[in-house]
Amino acid sequence: MSTPALDIALVHHPVVNRDGEAIASAVTNLDLHDIARAAKTYGVVRYYVVTPLEDQQKLAQKIVGHWTQGRGGRVNPDRKEALELIRVVDSVEQAIDRIEKRCGRPPKTIATCAAGRPYSIGYSRLRAMLDKGTPCLLLFGTAWGLSNAFIEGVDCVLDPVRGRTPYNHLSVRSAVSIVLDRLVGERDI
Amino acid sequence: MSTPALDIALVHHPVVNRDGEAIASAVTNLDLHDIARAAKTYGVVRYYVVTPLEDQQKLAQKIVGHWTQGRGGRVNPDRKEALELIRVVDSVEQAIDRIEKRCGRPPKTIATCAAGRPYSIGYSRLRAMLDKGTPCLLLFGTAWGLSNAFIEGVDCVLDPVRGRTPYNHLSVRSAVSIVLDRLVGERDI
Repeated sequence: MSTPALDIALVHHPVVNRDGEAIASAVTNLDLHDIARAAKTYGVVRYYVVTPLEDQQKLAQKIVGHWTQGRGGRVNPDRKEALELIRVVDSVEQAIDRIEKRCGRPPKTIATCAAGRPYSIGYSRLRAMLDKGTPCLLLFGTAWGLSNAFIEGVDCVLDPVRGRTPYNHLSVRSAVSIVLDRLVGERDI
Repeated sequence: MSTPALDIALVHHPVVNRDGEAIASAVTNLDLHDIARAAKTYGVVRYYVVTPLEDQQKLAQKIVGHWTQGRGGRVNPDRKEALELIRVVDSVEQAIDRIEKRCGRPPKTIATCAAGRPYSIGYSRLRAMLDKGTPCLLLFGTAWGLSNAFIEGVDCVLDPVRGRTPYNHLSVRSAVSIVLDRLVGERDI
């Protein structure tokens, strides 16, 4: 199977806290690992970790370095392969610039959020975009999600993941895994 | 939508380590949280945390108690709702006994594993069992997965989750999320 021109970004700013205020959230070790492993499984090109905070960038680089150049990767080469997808960047714009350099055109930016929007698009529509070879950058918010102001600036918003219940509090690690499976996983299962 | 008679278990024994030796693995905080949140989203009845180690049972109970009876749940009621699904048990047999008491018959036991088996069943077949109201207990291994001896004793093995690549090293948190979405999530997306 060919792999689509799909990149993902885990956004630590601009996101909101429990009260809806704009914040920059902290990088966590397991977000790097779990999401890199899912990205590698589904053929994602790059996994951008977005934070403007220098200390958080250093922390993320240190973790990634341990697994890609340090002892971690020698002990666990599978983990090395996954974490090699990670690029730490200042902003979503920086991720877009890098993808544009690689693809020759800017990616469509697609925001995810747990709450539905009237204008959000379905998974089949985004699958069709990927099948046509359109570069896509899928954006996931940490903390209480991407800020409204940010979401208003993207190209599309993807339908939220819904289970069989009204409960919509998946971890971002679960949400990334499910969305990737819906977009690029096996369909006839 | 009606919710199926689906229970899940996160098994810390009998699982294997990197060298294929049978071990009991350690309970981790994020396995409790992420998997409980996914279970709540998809209408899972109970999330059994299986460990025969008393100190690990106490640790799991302490974490669950903080969120279901303690301060955690008062600050974050959504998290309380999810962690209330957790039951800490000694063994898979104990989980089966409890489900049998609730349902009047023992559940079908379904093992998951990252490596395929010639006799594993597809997601549509398991969805059909759930749609008929068959109680099912879905088993996930921690560490390097459920032991072969254990897998030989279950009713069925579910096809592994495959992405677009040969890489098959998802975290158990991702695997649970994807499998639940494939079994009980929206189908026409």
